[in-house]
Amino acid sequence: MAELSIDRFVDRYARRTSGMSASEVRALFAVASRPEVVSLAGGMPYVQALPAAEIDAVVRDVLREAGPTALQYGGGQGQLSLRETLVRLMGEEGVPGDPDDVVVTTGAQQALDLLGKIFIDPGDVVAVEAPAYVGALSAFGAYEARFLAIATDADGMIVDDLEQALVQGERPTFVYTVANFSNPGGVTMSLRRREQLIGLCREAGIPIIEDNPYGLLRFEGDPLPCLKAMDPDNVIYLGTVSKTFSPGVRVGWVLAEQSVVQRVVLAKEAADLCGSNLAMLITERWFAGEDRWRGTLDRLVRTYRSRRDVMLAALGEHLPADAHWTEPAGGFYVWVTLPDWMDAKALLAAAVERRVAYVPGVAFYADGRGTNQLRLAFCYPDEDRIVEGVARLGALFTDEEQLYRNLGGR
Amino acid sequence: MAELSIDRFVDRYARRTSGMSASEVRALFAVASRPEVVSLAGGMPYVQALPAAEIDAVVRDVLREAGPTALQYGGGQGQLSLRETLVRLMGEEGVPGDPDDVVVTTGAQQALDLLGKIFIDPGDVVAVEAPAYVGALSAFGAYEARFLAIATDADGMIVDDLEQALVQGERPTFVYTVANFSNPGGVTMSLRRREQLIGLCREAGIPIIEDNPYGLLRFEGDPLPCLKAMDPDNVIYLGTVSKTFSPGVRVGWVLAEQSVVQRVVLAKEAADLCGSNLAMLITERWFAGEDRWRGTLDRLVRTYRSRRDVMLAALGEHLPADAHWTEPAGGFYVWVTLPDWMDAKALLAAAVERRVAYVPGVAFYADGRGTNQLRLAFCYPDEDRIVEGVARLGALFTDEEQLYRNLGGR
Repeated sequence: MAELSIDRFVDRYARRTSGMSASEVRALFAVASRPEVVSLAGGMPYVQALPAAEIDAVVRDVLREAGPTALQYGGGQGQLSLRETLVRLMGEEGVPGDPDDVVVTTGAQQALDLLGKIFIDPGDVVAVEAPAYVGALSAFGAYEARFLAIATDADGMIVDDLEQALVQGERPTFVYTVANFSNPGGVTMSLRRREQLIGLCREAGIPIIEDNPYGLLRFEGDPLPCLKAMDPDNVIYLGTVSKTFSPGVRVGWVLAEQSVVQRVVLAKEAADLCGSNLAMLITERWFAGEDRWRGTLDRLVRTYRSRRDVMLAALGEHLPADAHWTEPAGGFYVWVTLPDWMDAKALLAAAVERRVAYVPGVAFYADGRGTNQLRLAFCYPDEDRIVEGVARLGALFTDEEQLYRNLGGR
Repeated sequence: MAELSIDRFVDRYARRTSGMSASEVRALFAVASRPEVVSLAGGMPYVQALPAAEIDAVVRDVLREAGPTALQYGGGQGQLSLRETLVRLMGEEGVPGDPDDVVVTTGAQQALDLLGKIFIDPGDVVAVEAPAYVGALSAFGAYEARFLAIATDADGMIVDDLEQALVQGERPTFVYTVANFSNPGGVTMSLRRREQLIGLCREAGIPIIEDNPYGLLRFEGDPLPCLKAMDPDNVIYLGTVSKTFSPGVRVGWVLAEQSVVQRVVLAKEAADLCGSNLAMLITERWFAGEDRWRGTLDRLVRTYRSRRDVMLAALGEHLPADAHWTEPAGGFYVWVTLPDWMDAKALLAAAVERRVAYVPGVAFYADGRGTNQLRLAFCYPDEDRIVEGVARLGALFTDEEQLYRNLGGR
């Protein structure tokens, strides 16, 4: 899949496909899936933490009690009983909502696609963090959005920069943010920044899309209020069970006001008619067992916290002194910045050669920035593998620095 | 959901949403879901025919043998082993294919959406049958396609009319057809028409999208070759397990050449990352048991054939003499044409009042035609309910005719 072949339909594709490209990184990831390679690339949840016997029991209960429903078409909005469950789940983070205002989607990714479909005309501006979730860039990019990339620091999006852009005349269709434990940045928007963003967007009449996959994966400290809780009218909220339960059921959702909900449902029906009743019923039942889901979530948080600790310690030990990285208080990712002259994308092949993989930073910018940056995921490999992987990376980067110095670069 | 409310984001929606409207028929269908109403509207497969114990065994096997995979993210193209299964399934209808050329989608509906996304620029022309599958009109319409509606008769699309349109300068981006037991027409494209369509499109360089959900649900007669088998290069083929197995797993697929496949995969990843591994593994395993899936399919075909027979007999008995309808040799639907002056959409409220529901014909045309037509589905209600429903419809239409004559209309 490294390159699109020229073909008989070449003159027929829509203009938007020119923005869809198979990255050269794909080919490397195929290699990186070999077992001897430590992948710090993919954000795969540690589903091995899910209790197999309980999953089995949940699925059998669903089939016994609702077999014909599970195997049938459903409505475009998703089952009401599941939407009630998702509202309870949002309540865990203080987000108020009504099941009528929820649309179940195929993971939160489909919510990004459907919101892109109903909001973005070609050339419309979408404000995103820099770096931003690559899947959001793909989803919105498919509708030919132009991106306004707002820089981030340890406190998340630098809202002053957004304000500056608005002063200079930018008029984004919406602002997209992963405020908690961002992907890829691993940073969390501070309370002050949240208040500032809410106030600015409300004043400017710009809706905010808050994507919150990691909120319940907090390792320490007190949770900050979700943007949706701070301004229910102007924020469209996205959730998913991919990180608290399983990505294999593909259950995410949108919480928004009715006019948005109705358009998202129509777009959903045009996109795939409806989600899988079977997967929705399994999800609903999973979260019906309080001890079950809370116990699993606790186990996941403990596992990820410990892996985060191990990764941060290994980075301190193995990475060159002039590299730096974020220290996430939750979620899946650490964002590493190498010396300016290093090219993380160019180095990926050498890294895979040394049996370790990561995602080069340029993937997370719409404008080619991030050459000296990379994303590391600590969610999936066990602690020994994390240490081994970071040590291999450290050796690679140290060797590169040596080479650079030898060549007179410093 | 009857009407979209005006809202604070009203100036922000994309232009394409102006074509997405919640039909007034929705509100009626909410009423029609009451148990006392015989619904001849929805195309819900008779999933009660699926053997519960075998489903249970299949699901448990999947969880036992591949639990962590089932609960994890997968690739955008869908599992190779499932794609191999789908290739075998296509072989049942003589369609040749390679697993590398298959992309698994969320039902065939998502395939329509993704193909729309990669092929349709706003204003592009798409040639469809008249009447056409309403979900295709929604999917392509969301990308602002303009429809070229080609009339149909008992032999399917009248290809002469398409040729005429090409002569007059129309240049469709593709032709979309449900050649076998069409939805909603219930007609099958004859061999002569297939040859004519293949030749015309090949000569004009226009790809054909062949959507074949019902092909294996043939009640009598010999199967005709699929368009994909007749011209593998120029036909993009869509399949689904929704009718042979279960719509609840949401498994459909595209079979196309590599350049299309690669673009569909990129569009799929932007749309929802990947399908449900759990649902894909269940589907694969279901079709691994030859006796199981063939036995179920046989049972479904017998059930649908018998229901079709009952519906056709009831129509002959109860409908007014000046109504006529198609006689499907497979699939789910009968297409009814009433006298010109009747308005099936206007009559739907009265029908629901009389405890029977159908889909008004106008839903299946992009241009407001079909006021005196309607679609009846014989797939879901049992035979007694079908007879009762058709009798109620017959009484309604007969009363309408009486009223019309009394008012001097004839």
